[in-house]
Amino acid sequence: MRLRFTKMHGLGNDFVVFDAIHQDVKLSREQCRFLADRHFGVGCDQILLVERPTVADADFRYRIFNADGGEVEQCGNGARCFVRFVHDKGLTDKKQIRVETKAGIIVPRLEDDGQVTVDMGVPRFEPKEIPFLTDKRASTYLLSVGAKIVEVSVLSMGNPHAVQVVDQVETAPVAHDGPLIEHHPSFPNRVNAGFMEVVSRDHIRLRVWERGAGETLACGTGACAAVVAGITRGLLAHRVRVATRGGELTVRWAGDNHHVFMTGPAVTVFEGEIEL
Amino acid sequence: MRLRFTKMHGLGNDFVVFDAIHQDVKLSREQCRFLADRHFGVGCDQILLVERPTVADADFRYRIFNADGGEVEQCGNGARCFVRFVHDKGLTDKKQIRVETKAGIIVPRLEDDGQVTVDMGVPRFEPKEIPFLTDKRASTYLLSVGAKIVEVSVLSMGNPHAVQVVDQVETAPVAHDGPLIEHHPSFPNRVNAGFMEVVSRDHIRLRVWERGAGETLACGTGACAAVVAGITRGLLAHRVRVATRGGELTVRWAGDNHHVFMTGPAVTVFEGEIEL
Repeated sequence: MRLRFTKMHGLGNDFVVFDAIHQDVKLSREQCRFLADRHFGVGCDQILLVERPTVADADFRYRIFNADGGEVEQCGNGARCFVRFVHDKGLTDKKQIRVETKAGIIVPRLEDDGQVTVDMGVPRFEPKEIPFLTDKRASTYLLSVGAKIVEVSVLSMGNPHAVQVVDQVETAPVAHDGPLIEHHPSFPNRVNAGFMEVVSRDHIRLRVWERGAGETLACGTGACAAVVAGITRGLLAHRVRVATRGGELTVRWAGDNHHVFMTGPAVTVFEGEIEL
Repeated sequence: MRLRFTKMHGLGNDFVVFDAIHQDVKLSREQCRFLADRHFGVGCDQILLVERPTVADADFRYRIFNADGGEVEQCGNGARCFVRFVHDKGLTDKKQIRVETKAGIIVPRLEDDGQVTVDMGVPRFEPKEIPFLTDKRASTYLLSVGAKIVEVSVLSMGNPHAVQVVDQVETAPVAHDGPLIEHHPSFPNRVNAGFMEVVSRDHIRLRVWERGAGETLACGTGACAAVVAGITRGLLAHRVRVATRGGELTVRWAGDNHHVFMTGPAVTVFEGEIEL
């Protein structure tokens, strides 16, 4: 089959996006692997399918597949690209779009400046929900990492995060300590390790060692986890610019039980056509 | 400007190819960097421009640019992709094509099975031409690599190669010894390090640590250097299949003063359109 696709990225987290409404798109595991391959295929972190919704109260359904063909639940960078895609392709003119995902309905919004805001849900601090093995819940925890003791905030943004404050993000030992934290025995499902430099109350610099992926250009849930951690520690205001290696995001959180909102760019790189 | 391009690869060495005859293509260094970027751009090892020749006895001119915008001389994998491109786009129906390159005229040939044969030139063994610092020319040389002594053939295929025979290519210490050989003080311009397993007289397995690039999927000049080295040592016949991590090539060499011919595949992955 010959398929049209759009290559997009959000802060360097990149996607091959298919309009699966006007094209019949069914991808095998092998085809996902091929599409994601950066030398033999198109090259991307993940593949997005834009489909008709299967429920009455949604405008679209969108699905995300990893390079190994496995379907994943949600992705802030992918949701932003999805919104730009349906607008650029003229599939809708709504600014606020109800989207059916594997994780339920989400309602991303296209801002006037072309950026997209995504509701990232409510952070969870209950150790069992993260999951995190500890005697009792605390605002921060001490982890032994190699020969050091590191103070981390631990929370879930749908996936587990351990966030620490560092003096300078550029020189932080991300490649060395990241895997040690990821595999720390207190995290039965492993953990994403965030390293945050607080520039001011509304500006942080962030690097994230992602569980199973190593250091990435920009981790959406990692940005949210860092801002939430900084707010709970009294270091940050309720609206914070997050500078990552892939670019800048804005994260808002009003505090306990409120949803976290993340705003950032989505970029179309090129249009393509491939025979699968 | 909005440009059409074709994404191609030869054994995983991948190219963004532009028809610069029917499109006006002028790329700045920054645009090359963007095109080559695998997360923010299209992603490729190199960029190929297919142009009208500037000399009377050529059918086309083709130019190759690295990700940093620098123009390079020649590339076996690129030449194969070039031939497939001009045929697939209907720009010629000749099987044997005279092409003006920065290194002079080359005459690649499209084979009946769709593979492409490229003349890779004459191997050079004279130490000064490689360049290689040694007291006298020999058929093989002993190099000290870390705590070991390694026997290598040393020759130039336009670029310098040091090739050793190993028992098993899979377990060869490419990542460890490759950089030590690359930076060995006997090679003033550094060197590509080849690790060749002789399966039979007409079949080798090969891994190459490329100067400045690390281990690559397939190095065309490295395949030629390995076969030439094996023939001069009496280990190989004059036509040899070379299995690399990116796929298979065939290399032919009739011996001293003869040209080396390399035959291999060129694959079109997708067609694209990008705003630059």
